[in-house]
Amino acid sequence: MKVVIAIDSFKGSVSSMEGSREIALGIKEVYPNADIVSFPIADGGEGTVEALVYGTGGQLQSVKVTGPLMEPVQATYGITGNGKTAVIEVAAACGLPLVPEASRNPMFTTTHGVGELIAHAIGQGCREFIIGLGGSATNDAGVGMLQALGYRFKDQEGNDVGPGGNALGKIHRIDSAHVHPELRQCEFKIACDVNNPLYGPNGAAYVFAPQKGANPAMVEELDRGLYLFAGVVEKELGVNLQDIPGAGAAGGLGAAFAAFLKAEMQSGVGLVLDKIGLKESMAGADFVITGEGKLDGQTSMGKAPLGVAALAHAQGIPVIALAGGVTKEASVLNDLGVTSFHSIISAPMSLEQAMDPVETRYHLRSTTKQLFRLIQAVKAVEK
Amino acid sequence: MKVVIAIDSFKGSVSSMEGSREIALGIKEVYPNADIVSFPIADGGEGTVEALVYGTGGQLQSVKVTGPLMEPVQATYGITGNGKTAVIEVAAACGLPLVPEASRNPMFTTTHGVGELIAHAIGQGCREFIIGLGGSATNDAGVGMLQALGYRFKDQEGNDVGPGGNALGKIHRIDSAHVHPELRQCEFKIACDVNNPLYGPNGAAYVFAPQKGANPAMVEELDRGLYLFAGVVEKELGVNLQDIPGAGAAGGLGAAFAAFLKAEMQSGVGLVLDKIGLKESMAGADFVITGEGKLDGQTSMGKAPLGVAALAHAQGIPVIALAGGVTKEASVLNDLGVTSFHSIISAPMSLEQAMDPVETRYHLRSTTKQLFRLIQAVKAVEK
Repeated sequence: MKVVIAIDSFKGSVSSMEGSREIALGIKEVYPNADIVSFPIADGGEGTVEALVYGTGGQLQSVKVTGPLMEPVQATYGITGNGKTAVIEVAAACGLPLVPEASRNPMFTTTHGVGELIAHAIGQGCREFIIGLGGSATNDAGVGMLQALGYRFKDQEGNDVGPGGNALGKIHRIDSAHVHPELRQCEFKIACDVNNPLYGPNGAAYVFAPQKGANPAMVEELDRGLYLFAGVVEKELGVNLQDIPGAGAAGGLGAAFAAFLKAEMQSGVGLVLDKIGLKESMAGADFVITGEGKLDGQTSMGKAPLGVAALAHAQGIPVIALAGGVTKEASVLNDLGVTSFHSIISAPMSLEQAMDPVETRYHLRSTTKQLFRLIQAVKAVEK
Repeated sequence: MKVVIAIDSFKGSVSSMEGSREIALGIKEVYPNADIVSFPIADGGEGTVEALVYGTGGQLQSVKVTGPLMEPVQATYGITGNGKTAVIEVAAACGLPLVPEASRNPMFTTTHGVGELIAHAIGQGCREFIIGLGGSATNDAGVGMLQALGYRFKDQEGNDVGPGGNALGKIHRIDSAHVHPELRQCEFKIACDVNNPLYGPNGAAYVFAPQKGANPAMVEELDRGLYLFAGVVEKELGVNLQDIPGAGAAGGLGAAFAAFLKAEMQSGVGLVLDKIGLKESMAGADFVITGEGKLDGQTSMGKAPLGVAALAHAQGIPVIALAGGVTKEASVLNDLGVTSFHSIISAPMSLEQAMDPVETRYHLRSTTKQLFRLIQAVKAVEK
C-alpha cells in the first residue's frame, strides 16, 4: 500500500504538514506497513515556501528587510534543495498582516523589501526565483522592489520618487544604469492565478486596493497612477503593461516582474507541483490524498487539490479529497479527477469548533482511518 | 453489486424509509444496476411497527382506544404479512406525546388503551404479539391494560380500582375470572432493552417517573404502590415481579406482560431483525449499510445499527454505518462489526440545520455516492 498525501493547509486551523501527519497516522492504523509520502502543497499563496522547501529538501532564510511601512521587518524565504532556486512569498516582506489595520493605506505602502529579499538570494547564489504574489498590502506597481534592485524612478525635477502608490503619477523617467549586476542572469517564475490587468475597472486599484485600506478617492488616484506609470514604461522600455494578464496582481507587482525582470507568469499550483516533482512521486501509488480547509466551486479554479487530482487522475490513481467543509458545488470535482470527497466533520458543530486545531487533527485522522478500513474491506473481498 | 440497506430512523429528521431511499439513490448514481434491498429497522422503540409491517409485507390497523388520560385516541398498530402477528408500540396508546406537557402525571395516566389494542388484534385473528415498550406516559404497572383484557383489581372493599399509578397501593385482590377467553392462546414477545426492576432505587418510579411528570413526593408514592402491587401479585399468582429484569420498563408494564401474559422479554433489535428475516436477506450482499441519527457509545448497547452490523459481520459482509453525528466513543463500533462509520455532515453547521429533512436527505445521498465512488475505484484497481 503506497499512498501519496498532498494536501493544502486547512487555513486558519492546521498547516499542510500537520494535517498530512494525521492522515498518515490514520492510514497506519489500518495499514501499519503502508509506504506513505507526504508533500505539503500550496497554490502560490500562503504555504508556497514551506511546500517547496520541504518538497525539495531545501532550507529557510530569515532576513531583516524594509517592511511595507518602511519599518524593518524580519522576512523568511526559502532556497530549494538544489541551492539555486529562491522561493519568495511577497507577503513576507510587504504582506497585509505586517500592517496594523488602522495604518493600511496603499498610497504609502511599498514593496521595497521584496527587492531586498531578491538581492539577498542573489548573494546566496540563487539565479532562479519562484515568486508567490498573494496577500500584498501595496499598490506601487513594484516600484519599491525595483528601487531596491537599483532601478531609479525620477520625477519631472530629476529627483527619486518616494515609496507607495501615491508616487506612481509623479514618475517621469526610468534610470536602469545602476541595476543590480547579477539581475540579468536571473530567471523569475511567478505563481499567479489572477488575470487582472494593471489598471482600469478590473485593474489592481479598483479590484484589490479597497481591501488594502484605500477609500474610493484613493482608488481613483491609484488607478490614475498605474495608468500614468504604464505610459512611462511604454515610452521608456517599449513594453505595454496593460497587455500582460496578471500585471495587476499584488498591486501591480505582477507588472514589474513581467516588464522589468522578464518573469514568466504561471499557474501557482502547477509551478509548485512541478517543482516538487509530485507527478514522479506518484508512480506506483495506490491512492493519492489531497484536500484543504474548504472544497467548493472555487477549488475548481486552479487551486492546489485540483492540481494534485489532475496529476493523479492522469496516472489512473484514485484520488481521495478531504476537507473541513464541502459545498454542494464541490460535486464538479468528481468530473475533474477527484474519485471521492469527504468532509472530516463528525457531527453538527460551529465553524469555530471545527477549526480548532485539536479537532481538525482528530477529524483528519479518524476520517482517514474509516475510509481506509472501507478500502481494506473492499480489497479483501476482491481478492 | 447487491446492497442491503437497514437503517434506523434519523430521529427528528427523516424516517428509516425516507433515508433508505436517498441512500439507494446515492448508490444508483454510481452503480445504476445495483440490486438494492431496503429494510426500515427499529430497536423496539419508535419505528418498530413500520419496520415489521414493511419488512414482512403486512398492514397497519388504526383503532380508537382509551388514551392515557382516559380520553379517546386514535392508535395505530401493525399486523405482519402472515396475518397472525400483531406489532404494538405501547406509546401509540399511552405514549408521552399523547399527553400535553402540563397534564403529565403518572399518578393518573393509564395503559388501558394497550389492552384494547391487544383485544382488537385478537379479534383480527392475531395470536402472536410483538410489543415495543418505549415511551409510555404511565406508571400503572400495566394494571390499566390488564383491566381492558378482563382482569379485575379489587380494593379492600371489593370495588374495582380506578386508573393510574395512584391506584396501585389500593389493590387488595386480583380476579381473573373474566379474562378475555382467547388470551391464553396468545404468545407475547416484548422488545425490551432496559433491565430495571419493578421498584426500588433502580425501579420504574425512581428512574422513569420524573420524566413523565412526577414530582419527588409522587415518585415516592408510585414506588410504594409498585412495591405493594408486587406483594399482592406474589400472594395471588405466586410470581415474584421484582426478580424479573425489565419488569420496571414502561412504568411497570413490563411486569404485567411478564407475570400475567407470560411474555418473553427479548432484545428489541434482535426481535425486529429476526422477524423481518434480515439475516437471510443479506445472503450474497456486497455491502450492508446501516445507521441512525447519532452513532455513539450508546449505539453499542443493543441498538439497531449494531444488531445489523453483527448479522452482516457474521456473514463476512462489509458494513458501512452512516450517521448525522458520530461521537468519539463510536470508535468501539469498529470492534463490533462495523467496517467503517461516516458522518454525513458536509460542513460545520448547527444541529438544527443538520436535522432539516432536506439537508439530511441530501447528505445521505451525497455521502453514499462518494463512498461508492471510492468503492468502485478500489474494485477497478483490484480487477
